Amino acid sequence: MAAARIQGLPVVTTENRDAPGPFLIVCEHASNHFPAAFGTLGLPPAAQKAHIAWDPGALGLARRLAANLNAPLVAAGISRLVYDLNRPPHSPGAMAARSETFDIPGNAGLAPAERRRRTEAVYLPFHAALHAEIARRLAAGTPPVMVTIHSFTPIWFGKPREVEFGIIHDADPTLARAVLAEAKARTGLDCRLNEPYSAADEVTHTLRLQATPYGLANVMLEVRNDLIADPEAERAMADGLAPVLRAALAAMSPKPAEKAAV
Amino acid sequence: MAAARIQGLPVVTTENRDAPGPFLIVCEHASNHFPAAFGTLGLPPAAQKAHIAWDPGALGLARRLAANLNAPLVAAGISRLVYDLNRPPHSPGAMAARSETFDIPGNAGLAPAERRRRTEAVYLPFHAALHAEIARRLAAGTPPVMVTIHSFTPIWFGKPREVEFGIIHDADPTLARAVLAEAKARTGLDCRLNEPYSAADEVTHTLRLQATPYGLANVMLEVRNDLIADPEAERAMADGLAPVLRAALAAMSPKPAEKAAV
Repeated sequence: MAAARIQGLPVVTTENRDAPGPFLIVCEHASNHFPAAFGTLGLPPAAQKAHIAWDPGALGLARRLAANLNAPLVAAGISRLVYDLNRPPHSPGAMAARSETFDIPGNAGLAPAERRRRTEAVYLPFHAALHAEIARRLAAGTPPVMVTIHSFTPIWFGKPREVEFGIIHDADPTLARAVLAEAKARTGLDCRLNEPYSAADEVTHTLRLQATPYGLANVMLEVRNDLIADPEAERAMADGLAPVLRAALAAMSPKPAEKAAV
Repeated sequence: MAAARIQGLPVVTTENRDAPGPFLIVCEHASNHFPAAFGTLGLPPAAQKAHIAWDPGALGLARRLAANLNAPLVAAGISRLVYDLNRPPHSPGAMAARSETFDIPGNAGLAPAERRRRTEAVYLPFHAALHAEIARRLAAGTPPVMVTIHSFTPIWFGKPREVEFGIIHDADPTLARAVLAEAKARTGLDCRLNEPYSAADEVTHTLRLQATPYGLANVMLEVRNDLIADPEAERAMADGLAPVLRAALAAMSPKPAEKAAV
């Protein structure tokens, strides 16, 4: 396990770094930690624990998937409300002043200097660590297949969501379509492509920044968080999704990562 | 001036870091330095000075352009034959075993461990430094316009090249087309779009990795190296091209960097 720290801040942790499997698992919204350097942004305790601060269950699912798939895992260590690692630095959503029904007082009217401070302290080290894992594998001739793990709230602005498993792609839909087909065949989940979000909602920044430029096969997975609400449920979901990912990769022929090799 | 060093190796230098102009100048092939950590790859002295090892004149042109445009400059400090920063780590061209008519003995049959070593020592710190400059400006609400500066040999496999000024784009041709129009109007150079290379030749890696994911306006400029063969010629070329770049940016309306802001 390797951790990048800035002034004692665990921005990013890489687990199973030398695992030889074909996948690379990423979890940008793994934690609802609010480090002292940034404070709790004026949020009451309930808001600090809500889905706006992190993706509940995503880290547990990502860890078990990484174990099942013998894959490295790159996971963030701080709340997405300090910096949302799946957004570029010029996006209002990178340091959101409002999320669903919550105001985030500490993000209102941020000065450029504070946006730069968070970008340098959180965004850059996380993406540098992820880039390093990708580049190491490319150099060794083994382009990774990138899978980002997210969870979403079952109720959004008061409305229940029926989708249980969302499969989201950026420019290259190949792996996402294969995962959708295998998930429909192998699980009882309500599986949908590009729901509850899509690239048009600007949620594919990590894929676009890290996978698309290299032609890596990639997909963003969104699991409804009531389905991964405790460690047993996380384990069951991982046990169900690991064979889906393996079968989806096997179904891609030739693999985009190989096609794109230059 | 800020320099990133690995074991005393000046991989990348950022000059004019806080310059407020809209452009960000990049020079990946600035140097034909062969650091002791990697040796001279079995090359005779003439080959170490030839265009295969660097882009002669590009650094001088880039520095004068950066000064004229009040722009930061991110420049590499070692030979492209150790690692070609405009190629991804899985590309044979990243550590080329042959370039034009030259064999590069020290790059023949490289083991994966050596490819990883060079990727970690050269590619990652260069692109991390460039990424940091871009992200800092995005966070401050001033997306940079990225211009990479290259030179090409006037004679290639024994054949003279007529093109003098090549303007190359990746996915977004907007700035390249504007530069072409202004260069034709304002210079006497033989100006051509996507010559002597194009994205199909895999020469737009830096643009694709660093500019395209953020929707930054971007272009790669290639100047025939006999036209920038000494400091006076570099200065004259920069004095000619700086107004071209300014006019091209002004002609873009709305600017892609603004359109793409999310």
